[in-house]
Amino acid sequence: MDQKFSSLPDVQSLVDGRNIPIDRVGVRGLTVPLTVASVKGPQPTVAEVSMYVGLPADKRGTHMSRFVSLIADDPEPLSSGMMRSLLERMLELLGAEEGYIDIRCPFFVTKTSPVSGLKSLMNYKVRFTAERRRGVTRILQEITAPVTSLCPCSREISDYGAHNQRSRITIAVELDGELSLEEQIRIAETSASCELWSRLKRNDEKYVTEYAYDHPKFVEDIVRDTAKQLNAEPRVLAYHTEAENFESIHNHSAYAQIERDKRLG
Amino acid sequence: MDQKFSSLPDVQSLVDGRNIPIDRVGVRGLTVPLTVASVKGPQPTVAEVSMYVGLPADKRGTHMSRFVSLIADDPEPLSSGMMRSLLERMLELLGAEEGYIDIRCPFFVTKTSPVSGLKSLMNYKVRFTAERRRGVTRILQEITAPVTSLCPCSREISDYGAHNQRSRITIAVELDGELSLEEQIRIAETSASCELWSRLKRNDEKYVTEYAYDHPKFVEDIVRDTAKQLNAEPRVLAYHTEAENFESIHNHSAYAQIERDKRLG
Amino acid sequence: MDQKFSSLPDVQSLVDGRNIPIDRVGVRGLTVPLTVASVKGPQPTVAEVSMYVGLPADKRGTHMSRFVSLIADDPEPLSSGMMRSLLERMLELLGAEEGYIDIRCPFFVTKTSPVSGLKSLMNYKVRFTAERRRGVTRILQEITAPVTSLCPCSREISDYGAHNQRSRITIAVELDGELSLEEQIRIAETSASCELWSRLKRNDEKYVTEYAYDHPKFVEDIVRDTAKQLNAEPRVLAYHTEAENFESIHNHSAYAQIERDKRLG
Amino acid sequence: MDQKFSSLPDVQSLVDGRNIPIDRVGVRGLTVPLTVASVKGPQPTVAEVSMYVGLPADKRGTHMSRFVSLIADDPEPLSSGMMRSLLERMLELLGAEEGYIDIRCPFFVTKTSPVSGLKSLMNYKVRFTAERRRGVTRILQEITAPVTSLCPCSREISDYGAHNQRSRITIAVELDGELSLEEQIRIAETSASCELWSRLKRNDEKYVTEYAYDHPKFVEDIVRDTAKQLNAEPRVLAYHTEAENFESIHNHSAYAQIERDKRLG
Repeated sequence: MDQKFSSLPDVQSLVDGRNIPIDRVGVRGLTVPLTVASVKGPQPTVAEVSMYVGLPADKRGTHMSRFVSLIADDPEPLSSGMMRSLLERMLELLGAEEGYIDIRCPFFVTKTSPVSGLKSLMNYKVRFTAERRRGVTRILQEITAPVTSLCPCSREISDYGAHNQRSRITIAVELDGELSLEEQIRIAETSASCELWSRLKRNDEKYVTEYAYDHPKFVEDIVRDTAKQLNAEPRVLAYHTEAENFESIHNHSAYAQIERDKRLG
Repeated sequence: MDQKFSSLPDVQSLVDGRNIPIDRVGVRGLTVPLTVASVKGPQPTVAEVSMYVGLPADKRGTHMSRFVSLIADDPEPLSSGMMRSLLERMLELLGAEEGYIDIRCPFFVTKTSPVSGLKSLMNYKVRFTAERRRGVTRILQEITAPVTSLCPCSREISDYGAHNQRSRITIAVELDGELSLEEQIRIAETSASCELWSRLKRNDEKYVTEYAYDHPKFVEDIVRDTAKQLNAEPRVLAYHTEAENFESIHNHSAYAQIERDKRLG
Repeated sequence: MDQKFSSLPDVQSLVDGRNIPIDRVGVRGLTVPLTVASVKGPQPTVAEVSMYVGLPADKRGTHMSRFVSLIADDPEPLSSGMMRSLLERMLELLGAEEGYIDIRCPFFVTKTSPVSGLKSLMNYKVRFTAERRRGVTRILQEITAPVTSLCPCSREISDYGAHNQRSRITIAVELDGELSLEEQIRIAETSASCELWSRLKRNDEKYVTEYAYDHPKFVEDIVRDTAKQLNAEPRVLAYHTEAENFESIHNHSAYAQIERDKRLG
Repeated sequence: MDQKFSSLPDVQSLVDGRNIPIDRVGVRGLTVPLTVASVKGPQPTVAEVSMYVGLPADKRGTHMSRFVSLIADDPEPLSSGMMRSLLERMLELLGAEEGYIDIRCPFFVTKTSPVSGLKSLMNYKVRFTAERRRGVTRILQEITAPVTSLCPCSREISDYGAHNQRSRITIAVELDGELSLEEQIRIAETSASCELWSRLKRNDEKYVTEYAYDHPKFVEDIVRDTAKQLNAEPRVLAYHTEAENFESIHNHSAYAQIERDKRLG
């Protein structure tokens, strides 16, 4: 058999007889270099991308390689706005009515240590999702920030000291307007017992130790203080926030989560 | 300060003034040995457990150590029925109206190879979740089975051979009655190009190679064939199923997902 | 072609012409249920197993399925002694002179909280490796224990409080005689600022908070105190120990490691 | 107490009385954006960095924040040469005689599909380590490339088809002179049954399917063919190479490894 390209059968385009639509089909775990929008301009990073579309009951398969071309060819920095247009283009290119995109990447912010004024880079996790379902489009902008939590109970009942630990706060928001990733990270960092820096001199270390001791918070306090700020922020239409404390006195975590859609009253 | 135990303040029980209820709060990532119900009786395994309750707006904190005692003291093998009673007991012990439990563990089934009849153990992933929300209780029983997928397009267009790879199929079901983990795993394994065994002799290897070639399936076919079986199974009220092919010709996966609640018509 | 089993060609047994011996070849990431030896008898767990042998330059391939049968058929609880005989049997079954086995599993110890006397299970990681190379056999018994570390610098320079965090201590030993996993875990736990428990009442929490504050340790102190105990233990012929502090004031870890073979003087 | 910075005690610089030197102490898991040297110039990426030094028996602690400043301030693209100078600067800055640096990052190469000529990015893993120990400096340059492997036994014994799967090949080299990451990746890709691309049209898919079928390789063949190329490459002084096949007919991997230092004869 000496098959020519033009005559290779297109098995994915065949009609499917099982009569079962597929909610999401596409590529998962594609690793690509791209830029993400920061207040200081596009920031180079490396992202993990998944892209899916809905497939009607009568179509046998989607066209996987089109997803790859779509993300490879996009020069625009990652942002809520870019996700909206990427979703549009994906639906058009794949001939689909519904779809879902998930992009995750590290993100960096230059921070200045609290006393000595030392500059250093802190790393965060950023994630964007875009979904079109039953005609409704939702874009979620998510950050995860590492912070310090210090236990109020431990502080109260102990003659000296208080157990504290690294925690992570995650905030995903649906926006009306723009909220920079840096602003969103600040909401997380200011809801903790103390924020983190990559480099601290001894006078900075004294400051963060005492600051955390002066701001004891349960995991419940952290998500509530995060929620309080998100409630007050008019650009946030809906949010999901969670906090996880990697307890220094246990081998498991304490965890809390709050979800709210302001449009539902 | 010479504080006595009896007088140690209970900071978690204080009244909270922020007026923000918490959807989920509790422990995450607790590792415990337990048994899981199999058709051959209780099977020892090691599970990762997370347990959360809803917290009203006026309560400052939950009682974390009660979650730990709850799972530690339960002698019953893990099953959908056990999850229902564990959820009840958690809500009672924590004085909560809503709650969520997530338990994951490896699970083993003795299989017989297709030609030589060699016995060996295959390992799967099992997960149970139990949720009470707005008065409704949902128990989900989930398995993840590794399988082989063989690409129909590659087979069709190539003069010889066809790319194939390891895939994983996940099926989560809400049940009316009982479905054993073994039965649920069979639904996954019979929806793939071929199932897996841990030990194969050469005549078995010939069999699985040819069997997969005779049953080519896209990731779309796999989830549809899984959905078809779940549609026909009267004990299944609702399901979520997904398949991921770790493509042998790419460095990313092909992925598909179908969700259905039969009660919604 | 209607090939019979008895005549299926054995491709792995062919002679190889490249003249390159292979240091290790075998199976990796096999998940199996087994038991591990504890002071209270065999403890059920789930292990991840890798088994390799050396392959001479003139042999094309090893026999993969034999490794699987070997671990599946062993009823003996995991221990340093069992690893020695498993290595012997693997080398014999595979007809090899050199080989390597790596088995990892969770391990549990019932602990009693320090003040209230509450019992709960703590989970640890256990790993055994066995290697025969150039005629020498080495068995390593390794544990990883989660602990608390409290920073001496932070305590010294701060008016109140001190940053602390979860840490993990790993100890691998080559033994002359027997050292129980429980004894080895105690060496780690007693080298930290404080050990962990899964359940603590408030008076226990007061105790662990103050205990850690009274025993501040850098990551350097932790590995040195571990090494000191291992130096003094006559059953330990050689050791590798490391400690990692998941810093509560940074988003990276502090790490230290000490290796020593007492036989080298 | 109104402590001034200049008077904060420097606890790390105290004399230690345990008389135990530490082999490695420093920071682990630092995430930083940097560039890596490619044949087309500096390529932006995100790296995970660990940096350790040896600590003499009489020094209590190292200075953790100096490690962070070191990597943050380096503008030079990651390469074997850059690692050598970074190691020098670390030893000088920390006042140490021995040290170890480990940097890992994703790396991208634009590839052209074999028939249709479609361009797309493939992602690989890159790792550099630099070690000074007992006066000897070793720099290792490592790549991990995903590839396809197709089983010769399965092909030989089956009437049609052959099981194949994604595999990963790792090559770490100690160099005399320069070997680009792209050249090192080609050694891996040309040792497999077939290399991978991110985007393939149908005629490309036909090509890679048939190419893999025409180049069946056991995991043993893959490491040997890699070793053969590394033996023949004069710029390589020593190497470690391994291959792992994520078997499509099992739920575990087949694995092989070869190490050689040419200077040892």
